[in-house]
Formats: sequence, C-alpha cells, structure tokens
Amino acid sequence: MPGSSSLPRALVTGAAGFIGSHVVRALQAQGRVEVVALDDLSGGFRRNLPADIDFVEASITDHGELARLFDRYRFRYVFHLAAYAAEGLSHFIRRFNYTNNVLGSINLINESVRHEIECFVFTSSIATYGAVEPPMREDQRPCPEDPYGVAKLAIELDLAAARHMFGLPYVIFRPHNVYGEFQNLGDPYRNVIGIFMNQIMQGRPMSIFGDGTQRRAFSYVGDIAPVLAECPWVPGARNEVFNIGADADCSVNELAHDVAVAMGRPDHPIEHLRARNEVSQAYSDHTKARRIFGDRPQTPLPEGLARMAEWAREAGVQRSKPFEGVEVTRNFPPSWRALLDSSPRSSKHSAGEAAA
Amino acid sequence: MPGSSSLPRALVTGAAGFIGSHVVRALQAQGRVEVVALDDLSGGFRRNLPADIDFVEASITDHGELARLFDRYRFRYVFHLAAYAAEGLSHFIRRFNYTNNVLGSINLINESVRHEIECFVFTSSIATYGAVEPPMREDQRPCPEDPYGVAKLAIELDLAAARHMFGLPYVIFRPHNVYGEFQNLGDPYRNVIGIFMNQIMQGRPMSIFGDGTQRRAFSYVGDIAPVLAECPWVPGARNEVFNIGADADCSVNELAHDVAVAMGRPDHPIEHLRARNEVSQAYSDHTKARRIFGDRPQTPLPEGLARMAEWAREAGVQRSKPFEGVEVTRNFPPSWRALLDSSPRSSKHSAGEAAA
Repeated sequence: MPGSSSLPRALVTGAAGFIGSHVVRALQAQGRVEVVALDDLSGGFRRNLPADIDFVEASITDHGELARLFDRYRFRYVFHLAAYAAEGLSHFIRRFNYTNNVLGSINLINESVRHEIECFVFTSSIATYGAVEPPMREDQRPCPEDPYGVAKLAIELDLAAARHMFGLPYVIFRPHNVYGEFQNLGDPYRNVIGIFMNQIMQGRPMSIFGDGTQRRAFSYVGDIAPVLAECPWVPGARNEVFNIGADADCSVNELAHDVAVAMGRPDHPIEHLRARNEVSQAYSDHTKARRIFGDRPQTPLPEGLARMAEWAREAGVQRSKPFEGVEVTRNFPPSWRALLDSSPRSSKHSAGEAAA
Repeated sequence: MPGSSSLPRALVTGAAGFIGSHVVRALQAQGRVEVVALDDLSGGFRRNLPADIDFVEASITDHGELARLFDRYRFRYVFHLAAYAAEGLSHFIRRFNYTNNVLGSINLINESVRHEIECFVFTSSIATYGAVEPPMREDQRPCPEDPYGVAKLAIELDLAAARHMFGLPYVIFRPHNVYGEFQNLGDPYRNVIGIFMNQIMQGRPMSIFGDGTQRRAFSYVGDIAPVLAECPWVPGARNEVFNIGADADCSVNELAHDVAVAMGRPDHPIEHLRARNEVSQAYSDHTKARRIFGDRPQTPLPEGLARMAEWAREAGVQRSKPFEGVEVTRNFPPSWRALLDSSPRSSKHSAGEAAA
C-alpha cells in the first residue's frame, strides 16, 4: 500500500543505480516528497538504497506496469534516471539502447501526460553534444555521435513536444563523467574511475584506451544529486536544459594517477589499449546552472576520489559482467571482444549475427 | 527462393505503401537491381505492387525475421520507406510511433551494418525541421515539434553515427506533402489530398483544420520516386541529406478548390474544424537537390491532382479505419475523438488510459 504520508509522491527511476540512489537520499533529506524507488536491478543494486524505502522492482519498458503504478501512487513528480548509459558500447547494441533509453522514457512521458504531473526531471547527457567545440554550452547545436547520445537527445526533444502539446513541465540535466560512492565497479564498458578502482583491487593494470591525453571533467556525485532533487522547486529551472558537473578538467592519464593515489597505490601500472572512437575533449560550460542554482562549491577531484576509494575498498572487487546481448560485433574493440569470448554465454547471438 | 537474376538485390521497406510502391516501380524501370518488396500491410496494399514482385509480408519491428531475410537475400541496397507517418497523431501514440519509426529503422541499420551494404536510402521528413523559418534548408538546426519528427531526426543522426563507426553509406531525403496515385485514401489522420478526395466521393464536405490559410508545397509522387530510386548511383549524393519536393506552395483553402476541380466538383462545400497545433508555414529550399540531381521539371499541382483524381475515382471510396491504439486522449482533436467513439473497438484502451 502507498505510504500514509500526506506529502506528494515522487517516482525515481533507476533508483538503485548510481546517481539514482543519491537522488533518492537527497530527496529524503529535503523532505518535500515521499519517494517511490523503481529499478529493474539490471545495473543497480537494492543495497544502494535505504532499507525502508518503498521499492518497486520493475522495468520502465513495461508500460502496463508503469500505468498501474501511476494509477496506484498518483505521482506528482518523476525523476527519470533509468538508462543503460554506455556511449561506446551503444554502437554495438543499438536495439537495446533505443528500447531502454527511448521507449522506456516514452512510457514514462505518456503516463506523466495522462496524470498531469507537476514536473518531469530528466537526466540527459553530455553525449548529446557530440564533437562540438568545447566548452559545451546549452545553446549549441547538438551533434550526438553515438546511439546513446541520439537517444538522449530524442527524449529531450520529445519532452519539449510534450510541453508544447500538453503543458508537461520538465527540467533536463546533461551531467558528465559523474563518479562517487555506489558506482557500479563491475561494469567493464563504462565509468573509467570505477574500472580503475576495480582493476587496482584485482592487482591488474589500469587500462586506458589510446594515449590517455583525452580530457574530461569528472564530477563528484555529491555535488550533482542535490541539484537534481531540488530543481522542481527552483525558480527559473522549469522547461530548461542545464549542463551540470565539474569545471576542472584533466587528462585520463592524470586521472589514473589520482585514482592510484586515492587507492593508496600511487605506483600502480597503466596499460594502454588501442584507441577507440571517442571525442578527444569534452567539458561543459556551467554558467547557466550557476545562474539558476547558485554558485556552489565543487568537491576537488582528490577529495571525491578519496571518499569513493574508501567506499570501494569496503565494497570490494566486483565481478565483470560482460554484456550478453551484443547485436553487432563488427569493429568491436579487441579488449571488449576478449571479454565477450570469456563469457560462458558468448555463443548467444541472434540469428543474423551468428550467420554474418 | 531468391530470384535467379545476377543483379544485386535491393530491399524496399514499406513497399506496398504509397511512396514505396512508386519507388519499386522506378527501380524496376531503371533495371539496376532486383527488388524484394517488404511490407506489413498495416497501411499499404498488396494491390499497389506489380503482381510478379518478390513480396515478403513482415514488419521491420521483427528483427529476427529481418536477420533471416538479409541472410537469405544478401541485400546490397536498402530503400527504407516503412513508417507510420502521422505528425499530428504522433503526440497521442508516442510508444507506437517510436516502436515503428525508431526501433524498426534501427533493426534495418543493424542488419545493414552486419551485411556491409552499399547504400541505405532513408526517407526522413520535413517534420524534422519543426518551426524553423521557411524556406527550410538542410543546414538549418532541426527543431522537430512532434514525436514523428523527433523519430525521423533520431534515425538521421543514428545513420550518421553508423557511417562514422562502420562506414555505412546513406542518402537521406526529407520529402514533404507528397500526393498521387496509390495514396491511402482511407486514413482519416493524414494526407489532406486523399482525405479531400475521399470526402468528395462520399458526398461529405472537405474538412479543414482552422481557417485554411496554412501554406504547404504539395509534391507529386512521380517527381520524387525516381530520384529516391536513382540516388545510390548519383555522384555527390552519398552521406548527404536532401529536401525533395515541389517549390510552388499554396494555402490549404486553395488546395481544396483545386482538388474539387480535379474531381469534377468545383463547388464542393468546405467545413472548417477547430485549428489544431501545427506549423503555419512549411516549405523547403531545393537548391541542394537541384545541384546534385539536376534541375528536373515539376508536375504542376492541377496536373498531378488530375492524375490522382482519375485513379481515385477508379479506386473508389475507402473506409476510414480509425487508429485503434491511441495511448493518450488528452487534448485529442474533437473531430478525431468522434472517429474514435464511432469505432467498434473504441473501448480498447490500456490500463492506464482507462483509469485516467
């Protein structure tokens, strides 16, 4: 049964995932809404959430289940964080990417329109920009270069259409390179910091695609989640798109060094893999977010890494779960192919792939 | 069994639909490829195609079937015209729209990548532009305003990503307001010329949303289909996006008059319905297409309408089939709601909708 609180209810999707679990805690700390946490546990973990949370295990791709949940709980707010967030892999799992990241989101938008909710908060991505000249600004023409970025942009545009036709209010964030406690350390395809920490704990070298000079600005989750949780009540935020994250950028080589230091292994070795197809520089301008949400202090990278490292050492090594639904293996990075080949279910391809 | 011809094989999707059936005939007339025609007959008709064509009844949303077809026929070219093309209705059938127009297209792109085809020809839409200042040019920033336009833009961007990662060559067209023989006259939600002709044949007034001053440039299908069929062999066309269609625009009021004349009923009455949410002007600049495909004569509207009217009188009245999977009925235009209510299966809503 829905809780007995008189607060309006908020649905958080991807709630057991990395950023989602932090948004749940930030919403609870703010005390404006009663949270219902939804996750299909494909990438998240129930243990990332408070034990007493109202938790529903379901996928946003199940539109019938979503309809029942909206009828039952009468949500007034949706914080949509569920996604399969793998830019590099998305070229090889197009159908999976668009099913999760477009159709799943569309099911939520349909229900939000029907139930005339107060605000739809959507976590998009810096991947919507693609190869534009950094620093990226919200008014630049988006040029996503991978199916993940295309899917995120499609939902941004669909939300604008839903506002125009139905008056559905939204706030869109494009976070970038977020790291911190509760990140999935066992995913071999994404989250370079988690991959480095997991490799260090396993005594394996930290693997870097290419020469490691590609630059990124890594954003501590504790700086991001409270802004997402607050935005429906912040004047000027409605129906806007915001970059959000850290300003200071560094190379992946510098990052590897800082992670090694945070893990107490400053001389841990690095292994360079063949470069993959990725943008060389990606960092954002945060002027707009600063104007609307205030000029908040940003956690310095060494400090954020230290907090995450403390959690990671406690959580321990997480096993790599290679993605089992790869749809296209042409041009697949060799290091990823090795993961596929070592998977007990690597023979599970579709009819077309097996014959190709 | 695949045909015995030594020509490379081309897959045409949506082949039994309006533009698709013309592209099939244009390809046959050109004689460069052997055509395999695919259609799920949801909007098209087998009778639109030559009797001896290699026809497969299947949906592009069935990725397993597509994989088998690509393995069997080893297509070298794909002409992708299958779509549920209803801009106005797409707000109310989001899930259906993205399933057909994004996931279906993605299944084709996956197979085309696997099989390293020569060229993927995609019919996008003027709907990708949205409310940009006309005349629309290919280098303008797209701003789609309905889920149909968002889906088309997503596939344009995904094709660019597939070219970048896998070298998949493509040609994209954004046709607009195409009319002519074999158009589905029975669809109450789209194709204003077909709707007018069907209404005239039924002795009902021609229905116009709003005051009829909205302007469009109507394009005769016989001017479009040969260009689509030729483009893989035209130098300079690869990996480009082209507007295609008529230059001369007219108001919907003027159009109604011309249709009435073509049908031999110049004084047929007009009924104005409440305006719906649509762009007031939409016409395209065709400089780029003219540069690459040559300066071809355009069939004048009265002449194209006369040809279509002759076919329509022969084909006769087609029954309106109201769309039965409406997902959201909020803000649904009253005239469409009347169609829904008169449908014998109008009670078939999803759980969420019934309770909303």
